[in-house]
Amino acid sequence: MELFERLIKGDLRAAGRLMSRAEAGSGEVRSALGEIYKAAGKAHIVGLTGVPGSGKSTLVSKLVAAIREDGRRVGVIAIDPSSPFSGGSILGDRIRMTNLAMDDGVYIRSMATRGSTGGLARSALAAVDILDAAGFDLIIIETVGVGQDEVEIARASHSVLVVSAPGLGDDVQAIKAGILEIADIHVVSKCDRSDANRTITDLKTMLAMGINVSIKNKDDKPLWQVPVVGTSSETGEGIGKLLETIDRHRDAHRSTALGPERLRRIAEYRTFKTAEDLLRGRFFTSTSERVTAMVERISRRELDPFAASDELMSNIAL
Amino acid sequence: MELFERLIKGDLRAAGRLMSRAEAGSGEVRSALGEIYKAAGKAHIVGLTGVPGSGKSTLVSKLVAAIREDGRRVGVIAIDPSSPFSGGSILGDRIRMTNLAMDDGVYIRSMATRGSTGGLARSALAAVDILDAAGFDLIIIETVGVGQDEVEIARASHSVLVVSAPGLGDDVQAIKAGILEIADIHVVSKCDRSDANRTITDLKTMLAMGINVSIKNKDDKPLWQVPVVGTSSETGEGIGKLLETIDRHRDAHRSTALGPERLRRIAEYRTFKTAEDLLRGRFFTSTSERVTAMVERISRRELDPFAASDELMSNIAL
Repeated sequence: MELFERLIKGDLRAAGRLMSRAEAGSGEVRSALGEIYKAAGKAHIVGLTGVPGSGKSTLVSKLVAAIREDGRRVGVIAIDPSSPFSGGSILGDRIRMTNLAMDDGVYIRSMATRGSTGGLARSALAAVDILDAAGFDLIIIETVGVGQDEVEIARASHSVLVVSAPGLGDDVQAIKAGILEIADIHVVSKCDRSDANRTITDLKTMLAMGINVSIKNKDDKPLWQVPVVGTSSETGEGIGKLLETIDRHRDAHRSTALGPERLRRIAEYRTFKTAEDLLRGRFFTSTSERVTAMVERISRRELDPFAASDELMSNIAL
Repeated sequence: MELFERLIKGDLRAAGRLMSRAEAGSGEVRSALGEIYKAAGKAHIVGLTGVPGSGKSTLVSKLVAAIREDGRRVGVIAIDPSSPFSGGSILGDRIRMTNLAMDDGVYIRSMATRGSTGGLARSALAAVDILDAAGFDLIIIETVGVGQDEVEIARASHSVLVVSAPGLGDDVQAIKAGILEIADIHVVSKCDRSDANRTITDLKTMLAMGINVSIKNKDDKPLWQVPVVGTSSETGEGIGKLLETIDRHRDAHRSTALGPERLRRIAEYRTFKTAEDLLRGRFFTSTSERVTAMVERISRRELDPFAASDELMSNIAL
């Protein structure tokens, strides 16, 4: 596997080609991805999520700059909440336009949420492995914190960052409530705004109420206290501190029970997800003709989808 | 099936109980849901979607009021983009607090996006069938237009309404781009704002460029021209016109090739979704012990998820 050899030597063109193949979902790439998975495991994976309008993309570009100043190499997988049809990649384009684009120590890949359910997670996690095997120190997966797939992908990382911003509408806050609990680190963006303190206080109150789940050591002390870090992409405030906090979480992840526990959960998720893809693909292929033959009757309500799927499942040994 | 008999006589307590059972996903409810599916098919289903901050929930409550004034009965399934953990239902609660709550011709159900992928679509579509079989004239499914599941659910309706609002941020607009193409009717909310005209013009320009897909008749004329309707939940402007437009689309759906084509697509989607649920459930049950035994090695990168899932699939005849 020539591409694999080139990848583990750090060849980024090989990385890009492998990602494209993983996204296309061709069967041939599976064995390469298996090898890549086994070669990976050194990078620290950061899942960064937050509602629309929280300033995630700008924060990512500032964080990337700070990581580069520190001399480390960083990959970004930006997952666009875009069309099931057009598959655009607006957020990624925005990042690429910054002055980071010509730097060899940065690799940015943006992915559309096109294709079937599960395909997104498969492509994103394959891209993470590819960048990991290529020798990047940190890999950031940026997702919008809405939609089950997107949240799951963010959770398949070592450090989950949830970005909140002051002054978002009620609708948006309602969504945010759902992702706060998955944070290892809370980030409040736009801290140059006067109402940011309120957001920070709210988050700290929530944490004091014990909403975030934590793993405890033998003395019943939590192995990690979820911090709240304020940042401003405008003034640069807090970006350095955020990177320090990520490194602190990485150290806790590597030196305590936090890591093995998280790694097992991710391994289980990835295995089921991979198997599910395979299962669904085979099922669709093997039943699509029979489904087509049934659709007319189902659309006329003479046959129901439950009876139809029982029939489809009847000769599958599971 | 006592509950079923009560349901088709319009008993709303029976409806609520059946929805709860469908959400719990118990195996027993499947045959009842099959009967309900076959008894349903009279209601017109409206999928209403839009990004956070577009004012969907308020619009829904105004639309519901207009439908009631017209003497028709309406059900609302509000899908909350909430926690994978807590399963809250903030949007639904907000609607319930309006003066519609005591009206027998309105039924509002809110659902959290908790549970496994696919479970949300299953519960939401079951709830639609239940309200349909109970005799509601119109059923509105409200979803946030982000996340594959949510968009798919909106598309499983007869009339897809996409709500846009003036003055949303760049992040949000980027998301919106992805759902515009699925609209049968565009709604621009917050038309009391001075910048709403710009949003309407933008949508019309986009439509003129032919982005929305349309089915054509023999003379090569589209069977439906996607309209843009401006509304204001503040002043009530445009709400009546929106209801008229929905009725006009319903008529086109029922009297032209639009309907059968859409119904076949929905039937196919529902059959695959139902079968997929069944398939995934059986697969998880039959493999979970073997997965647990593999997880340690996968988390240590000695085994990869691809080889692991090949192994899991090896004795499944598909």
